[in-house]
Amino acid sequence: MAEEIRITIDEFRDVLYQKLIKHGALQEEAKKTSEIFALNAADGVISHSILRVWRLLSHYDNGLVVPGRMPVFVSGTGAVARYDGNGTSGVLSASFCMEKACELADRFGIGMVALRNANHWMRGGYYGHLAADKGKVAICWTNTRANLPSWGSKVSNIGNNPFVMAVPGKDGKHLVLDSAMSQFSNGKLEVMRRAGKLLPVDGGYDQEGNLTRVPGDIEKTRRSIPMGFWKGSSMSILLDACAAILSDGLNTASIERKMQKDGTDEAFLCQIFIAIAPEALGESRLEEIEASILDSVHNAQPVKEGSPSRCPGERVFRDREAAFRDGILVPAESWKQILEL
Amino acid sequence: MAEEIRITIDEFRDVLYQKLIKHGALQEEAKKTSEIFALNAADGVISHSILRVWRLLSHYDNGLVVPGRMPVFVSGTGAVARYDGNGTSGVLSASFCMEKACELADRFGIGMVALRNANHWMRGGYYGHLAADKGKVAICWTNTRANLPSWGSKVSNIGNNPFVMAVPGKDGKHLVLDSAMSQFSNGKLEVMRRAGKLLPVDGGYDQEGNLTRVPGDIEKTRRSIPMGFWKGSSMSILLDACAAILSDGLNTASIERKMQKDGTDEAFLCQIFIAIAPEALGESRLEEIEASILDSVHNAQPVKEGSPSRCPGERVFRDREAAFRDGILVPAESWKQILEL
Repeated sequence: MAEEIRITIDEFRDVLYQKLIKHGALQEEAKKTSEIFALNAADGVISHSILRVWRLLSHYDNGLVVPGRMPVFVSGTGAVARYDGNGTSGVLSASFCMEKACELADRFGIGMVALRNANHWMRGGYYGHLAADKGKVAICWTNTRANLPSWGSKVSNIGNNPFVMAVPGKDGKHLVLDSAMSQFSNGKLEVMRRAGKLLPVDGGYDQEGNLTRVPGDIEKTRRSIPMGFWKGSSMSILLDACAAILSDGLNTASIERKMQKDGTDEAFLCQIFIAIAPEALGESRLEEIEASILDSVHNAQPVKEGSPSRCPGERVFRDREAAFRDGILVPAESWKQILEL
Repeated sequence: MAEEIRITIDEFRDVLYQKLIKHGALQEEAKKTSEIFALNAADGVISHSILRVWRLLSHYDNGLVVPGRMPVFVSGTGAVARYDGNGTSGVLSASFCMEKACELADRFGIGMVALRNANHWMRGGYYGHLAADKGKVAICWTNTRANLPSWGSKVSNIGNNPFVMAVPGKDGKHLVLDSAMSQFSNGKLEVMRRAGKLLPVDGGYDQEGNLTRVPGDIEKTRRSIPMGFWKGSSMSILLDACAAILSDGLNTASIERKMQKDGTDEAFLCQIFIAIAPEALGESRLEEIEASILDSVHNAQPVKEGSPSRCPGERVFRDREAAFRDGILVPAESWKQILEL
């Protein structure tokens, strides 16, 4: 078990702000980006906040991110629009596009933005929360480099393409799904390896071609299992096709080819942001429906006595409250590295 | 292995047409319904065509379907609309709503229809093909009765909520995902049980609480596994919440309660139909992107030599061609039962 230290959310936010400025970010973008990363850390998603700081800053260093840029409108009509990432930081371009989708939903009941040439959006769930905070139902996803073998393939040829769905909840307690198409995200493999833990179920293949629960072995072979075997594989392919076609950007295979050719980090991604304004459809018993769903999940007879089933997003709000009160535990080594960046 | 006989697609369509008329359907709806069922059978989805005829006809007998009905507009504005199933046959109301979503997409670039009080739509993939035939990218899903335990629950409390994504392909060879949130659909369990086969991976629990590949044992306990364990469980919950809230209809727990109270078959479902017109977003290298994706999937080094990885929907077109040419193999007993209905 790696050593952990406790830091406050404000401390993380302020350190990240200073590091972003140091690496060339403008004040406004450093402010917004550090706040998003701090919230993601507070929500317990260490893999896509604390552990991704080096990567975020490297994007400023290597020119994938150009300070001060915003996504550029390419084309579109009515309730749909296509944007180009234009060197914007990934968290900022994704936030911008989800906000645009929400504006379109306010006008048309539903809105969609297709973004191409995007940098890594880090934690996808954030954009679901962003839309749900505005009272919107949201669906969004990104494609990725080739980091997952399709079902029946021995080599990584599809993306783990994180997929997000969000429904606004009472008192800000939204239902938010944030799911990579692999059984475990790369971020999760990293967190489990660092913690010296085994995965709860098989997550991929080791170098002998056997299924394994050892996260580091899977990171080595890059042979993760798609969630639900052929099901996650198929869904990954559709998410990639939709995103690349609607944004007229690069599909996973083309992203991978470009990365190998240019020797760059994962970039030039395609993302889809769909927002729906429930009130445009008429009255809805939103609170009653959510209460019924929560009740049916919480009060079902559990497999393990005392471990009730949960709804996606519930852990987040418990973690967030605790994190803003008590700070968060992070790997001491990771924090030391951040301070040196 | 149960005895199988070969019938032609036309024979199935004509027999079903006659049976529908006999059970009260009007000519026009019998024609359209029998054509949809015939196509689903040709596409190799026996579970949701041949094996569902008795159920379709029972809906006419027990009054869940009222001949001649169509969905009724409830409310909505701009690119979104809410409809009520109004006793329409499930395949007809779902077709109607996907067509409406496509019309909205023609006007606004994207369109969504939320349908409540719907009867069972049978094979979800059909509505993806329907939209893709019109050149649309489509996403649709339905909620269901409580037929799946949420992750950590011992009893069925969530739905397997089939989820469909479709992207139009060259020469009608669309990419179509049609995936229940359980690792295996109930239809698949039935088909495998009838064929006396084991599932390729664990699909649920037997009566001793052990994971099993025996389909009949899972049908008995009704303890299927969600695809990807907690991932399919979470996605099922979000699909249910979205569908019920946007249509202001019944969520899975409420559907189950109503079924138990009224002693009826699965009905009063909520369905979402989203269609996107790619051309509204501008030019797109659709064929080039799809060719790249197909290539990266087909030509990846396979786990089993000679068994290349496949894209969702590919089997369907091979099956469809063969079925229209040679007919299809169906369980002899099932066909005999249809003829007696």
